[in-house]
Amino acid sequence: MNDKRLSKSLDPLPEPTLRRLPWYLAFVSMLRAESVEYVSSTRIAEELHVDASQIAKDLSFLNIKGKTRIGYEVASLEDALRFFLGFSSRHDAIIVGAGSLGGALMQDSGLQRYGLNIVAGIDNDPKLAGHKIAGIPVYSPQHLSDLIKRLEITIGIITVPVESAQAVADSLVGAGVKAIWNFTPVRIRVAEGVVVTNTSIYSHLAVMYNRLLSNHSDF
Amino acid sequence: MNDKRLSKSLDPLPEPTLRRLPWYLAFVSMLRAESVEYVSSTRIAEELHVDASQIAKDLSFLNIKGKTRIGYEVASLEDALRFFLGFSSRHDAIIVGAGSLGGALMQDSGLQRYGLNIVAGIDNDPKLAGHKIAGIPVYSPQHLSDLIKRLEITIGIITVPVESAQAVADSLVGAGVKAIWNFTPVRIRVAEGVVVTNTSIYSHLAVMYNRLLSNHSDF
Repeated sequence: MNDKRLSKSLDPLPEPTLRRLPWYLAFVSMLRAESVEYVSSTRIAEELHVDASQIAKDLSFLNIKGKTRIGYEVASLEDALRFFLGFSSRHDAIIVGAGSLGGALMQDSGLQRYGLNIVAGIDNDPKLAGHKIAGIPVYSPQHLSDLIKRLEITIGIITVPVESAQAVADSLVGAGVKAIWNFTPVRIRVAEGVVVTNTSIYSHLAVMYNRLLSNHSDF
Repeated sequence: MNDKRLSKSLDPLPEPTLRRLPWYLAFVSMLRAESVEYVSSTRIAEELHVDASQIAKDLSFLNIKGKTRIGYEVASLEDALRFFLGFSSRHDAIIVGAGSLGGALMQDSGLQRYGLNIVAGIDNDPKLAGHKIAGIPVYSPQHLSDLIKRLEITIGIITVPVESAQAVADSLVGAGVKAIWNFTPVRIRVAEGVVVTNTSIYSHLAVMYNRLLSNHSDF
């Protein structure tokens, strides 16, 4: 165990820390754009409503320490956050389901800025397969496995209808992806060791609607 | 307090329940498409890895009870879930930032199926304002307030760069929206009573990258 800690890669960060880091990144990016040179944890705390000691603790996971009275150097803090969040590296991905949501993600150049490089799309619709979306080629499902192996793709993105989600996950894992970004509300099952990240944007909608309705009942 | 409970609208559902309902919906929609008529909580439990008693409890919030030995009627369960999740109603929304992610969401017809009706986009880019994306007109920022008031828009979607997020939120709330769907990693602040739902897809990416890296360190 100990020698593993000494070895190359990162230890997994606690998930609550990991969820706060993008807030810090958003704020320091803004400061950097405004040419601010230093920022204290107190200032970050005020802006983000996170306890200053929590911020210091979160940043210590990244081996970043502020200087007494001066605080953190904005530019190097931004770079460190981008590095630790994995946004500085290139992660090759394939997207399965190039319909409305999938096609939309392929057109979102923001993902590229955050290190996600979508190299191919897969769709069984003959109107889509053989064409390109935002410059990214779309193939029919029979090419999925070969593409993943040949291009050494590590991330599979699932944006298919719910009834196909598990079968697509099985194909992706079978072909060797190490992580799945699941945009369906289906709870997909994968072999141990494969990372699954769920982003069910329609579930977020449901939470918003429900809060809206319960607020309105106060009228 | 008591008379409010007896009045019209829904009480807020516990958030964990609310987050599970879309899983149930995804599963029963699939069953309905396969013409399955009844489903037991045990069957749902097996499929979704949620405790059967938890499922019964979650569904009782919606006043849905299964029949002994037979279980839940699939069609009416699907309708009830869609209703309680707010997917059967139409919710008018305006999207601020019609660039890569915003433009992508405007093109996602899936949102429409889940009750979100994007009636207008706002962007300060003169190449976008005055044009349409997926049939939805895009206006310059000076029209934001008037559009929200005139069309009685209740939901504002924020897909602008981080440095503008708070200012946009202020304009939306000032013009009268009741809920904000925030796609930026910025922790926006709003007046009490305004619903904020955060969907920072780039933060989800960071969580996925970190898990990937820590898995790889096992090699």
